[in-house]
Amino acid sequence: MDAIGRKRWSIAEGYIPSESISADRALVSHETACILNAGDKDANVTLTVYFANREPVGPFRVVVPARRTLHLRFNDLDDPQPIPKDTDYSSVFESDQPIVIQHTRLDSRRAEISLMSTTAYSEA
Amino acid sequence: MDAIGRKRWSIAEGYIPSESISADRALVSHETACILNAGDKDANVTLTVYFANREPVGPFRVVVPARRTLHLRFNDLDDPQPIPKDTDYSSVFESDQPIVIQHTRLDSRRAEISLMSTTAYSEA
Amino acid sequence: MDAIGRKRWSIAEGYIPSESISADRALVSHETACILNAGDKDANVTLTVYFANREPVGPFRVVVPARRTLHLRFNDLDDPQPIPKDTDYSSVFESDQPIVIQHTRLDSRRAEISLMSTTAYSEA
Amino acid sequence: MDAIGRKRWSIAEGYIPSESISADRALVSHETACILNAGDKDANVTLTVYFANREPVGPFRVVVPARRTLHLRFNDLDDPQPIPKDTDYSSVFESDQPIVIQHTRLDSRRAEISLMSTTAYSEA
Repeated sequence: MDAIGRKRWSIAEGYIPSESISADRALVSHETACILNAGDKDANVTLTVYFANREPVGPFRVVVPARRTLHLRFNDLDDPQPIPKDTDYSSVFESDQPIVIQHTRLDSRRAEISLMSTTAYSEA
Repeated sequence: MDAIGRKRWSIAEGYIPSESISADRALVSHETACILNAGDKDANVTLTVYFANREPVGPFRVVVPARRTLHLRFNDLDDPQPIPKDTDYSSVFESDQPIVIQHTRLDSRRAEISLMSTTAYSEA
Repeated sequence: MDAIGRKRWSIAEGYIPSESISADRALVSHETACILNAGDKDANVTLTVYFANREPVGPFRVVVPARRTLHLRFNDLDDPQPIPKDTDYSSVFESDQPIVIQHTRLDSRRAEISLMSTTAYSEA
Repeated sequence: MDAIGRKRWSIAEGYIPSESISADRALVSHETACILNAGDKDANVTLTVYFANREPVGPFRVVVPARRTLHLRFNDLDDPQPIPKDTDYSSVFESDQPIVIQHTRLDSRRAEISLMSTTAYSEA
């Protein structure tokens, strides 16, 4: 299939609650960038994280193989450093191949989970 | 009315929880691609599903008749094979007519349902 | 201020649950099209609703005055006919002035409300 | 990094519930515009708020420093006047630098929070 997507993406919302009612990985509070690489070349993606009161952190580097999806949890990032909890952030993604990014938060601070999701902002 | 929409769409998020507090079809955990064909010709739509660790599956084929909407549940897909539960996926839609796609998940793993929705990513 | 927005919009998702835990207008299950007309001319908007199994219904007509917002509940539409509950639908909006549309559902089928929202699909 | 984003944005949905189950700032019902300025110049942003039945209010003015994010709560705006609770509104943002805006509501009218989020509507 032809590749679909764009090479620059941004998610302006970012916030990982430190509280979770569940320790189950599926239900712990988390933010995810779902990244699709539908093309036939591996996508090298760099991620920079912006904060309210200090300089940006990055680049974080991930590879999304050809014809694969990567549901990347911000909670799992640790190189060059982890994303702090209970802290406002934003993110920018740059890829060498066209990709599609959708943002999701699962919030389990209270007993019942809450979800939100949006297609991220993209530029050619 | 003139047709509205585009011919290539992608939903980067995909995850069908296996758990549901309710067996009622309206309240069982599900993901949906709401597809509108506002034009005067039937739309032949092919859907390919991408995974984290194996080759894509498809094409799935659906027809959205002229001047109709189809709220397609990923849970209901079974040809060439069903979408596994509790598994990260992404999807790409290709149509021979302009269509509009919006993505929704109803999650009923816990007693109270949670909803999320977004207009999908589109290309001409 | 200069007008902002586009003249053709579509919301592919549509579903008004018949159940609500509350009779309070703010908390009864509803779907809303939030329509902003930031320009200096009143916007005449026509709305057509599409279904899975029958011909579209419309046009519904609303006016969004200059420099005003209208949070239009699909539940309140009744001319030429009301939108049936528990039924899949989609909608297309056409305006003679640039407008911005965001879609929201508040779902109170269960004791705790659930929300979803997305910027609608637009064309010039 | 090169700047990313656009200079005109709109969020058509706006509604701050007056009720909250919690007085904790993180969990009180609120609406937020998450604004990312990934560029190397401070962004001067003006915000105008539109209502259903009266003239717009503004401009509100905020600065998003270079390489910073601002998660702006509508609840916190007070100059030239606060945003009334339980009232439908919409907003338009104009910036002198490219920015990215994502809209979020955390609703805690009921015991369990509900979230919604969407990338806002943008124009060059």
